[in-house]
Amino acid sequence: MKIYDTPGFPNPLRVRIVLGEKDLLSQVEFIKIDLIAAEHKQPAFLAINPTGTVPVLELDDGTYISECTAITEYLDNLTGNPTLTGRTAREKAVIHMMQKRAESELIDAIGIYFHHATPGLGPILQAHKHPEWEGRTQWGRMHREQAEGGLHYFDRVLREQPFIAGEAFSMADATVLGGLLFAHYADIPVSAEYSALLAWKERMYQRPSVANA
Amino acid sequence: MKIYDTPGFPNPLRVRIVLGEKDLLSQVEFIKIDLIAAEHKQPAFLAINPTGTVPVLELDDGTYISECTAITEYLDNLTGNPTLTGRTAREKAVIHMMQKRAESELIDAIGIYFHHATPGLGPILQAHKHPEWEGRTQWGRMHREQAEGGLHYFDRVLREQPFIAGEAFSMADATVLGGLLFAHYADIPVSAEYSALLAWKERMYQRPSVANA
Repeated sequence: MKIYDTPGFPNPLRVRIVLGEKDLLSQVEFIKIDLIAAEHKQPAFLAINPTGTVPVLELDDGTYISECTAITEYLDNLTGNPTLTGRTAREKAVIHMMQKRAESELIDAIGIYFHHATPGLGPILQAHKHPEWEGRTQWGRMHREQAEGGLHYFDRVLREQPFIAGEAFSMADATVLGGLLFAHYADIPVSAEYSALLAWKERMYQRPSVANA
Repeated sequence: MKIYDTPGFPNPLRVRIVLGEKDLLSQVEFIKIDLIAAEHKQPAFLAINPTGTVPVLELDDGTYISECTAITEYLDNLTGNPTLTGRTAREKAVIHMMQKRAESELIDAIGIYFHHATPGLGPILQAHKHPEWEGRTQWGRMHREQAEGGLHYFDRVLREQPFIAGEAFSMADATVLGGLLFAHYADIPVSAEYSALLAWKERMYQRPSVANA
């Protein structure tokens, strides 16, 4: 298997944590994509993922899989029972619900703030982010507020249970960790009041899959 | 089980098609949410789904599941083998990838156009959609272009294979059908050039699950 990604970025982090949890890192060849140069918006990359995002997984049969949830479903069902996407119908439902909330309320909201209300990843990539659009800073700031609401929400969740989707580590934990990494890059602080979220993060970084990702 | 939704709307359609495919319609009690009155943005509804979207599935144990993908994972794994979310690792990955593309390139893009560049669902709901934000019409129109690109993309996909995610009907077909319904409401025509997409739609409406949804 090959993974096209950029080390140190939020969505790549999610899949690298999954690979670590599933003990699959040694089976993957990583191919680095230059996000600063907007390599993921060029024709060669769009041919393997028309939505222009990283990471992308290339299977040995040549199939390209994009989108972190889809990649995670593959890796989690490849070896043994799924453990990161749930075993029962109810577990799968709760994990997918929390996965989507972690995307919409953290990663995606922070992405809109970062790319529209800050210099983002610099001028080359910004050219692909509608720079001449008047309302973008205001729209970005509204999504920063949404992301701050997301941090509050996940702190509340973690006051009731040890992991984002309940009693066990799941892909939704990896997604919230990606969100916190993105919040750090985008200069969105996590309030010290969110003690459950901060304690969870500390526990997560004790897992080798997270510490080495 | 109970489902909180609004008949005739795009995301509710997705889950109703899934229920029909799984022959589960008779096991569900539907509770109607008044989207025009913004009932899904009021505290009573936000208590069951903090992101304020329909549909929501209530399990018999009182658990609330929101997000169409999560609801579909539950229903598909409830009875028999999953058929709409894939059986093998590779099938699951491709279906989840196409599901996400159908959301981002059709349903979500049309939603931004509809709520920001048109009167949407009227003044009560619009009050929840940042009406005083200057750039909204331009942002909405850019997402109409994205949705038009999505229609082009899915036509290309359907020139190569009979269903959105390959050789069998999956949840991604239900999601593209939700996208086409939303395109109709938002007055985004499907070009007659997209003959594969239009022929697929006609085939889909011959399925009882779709015709009766």
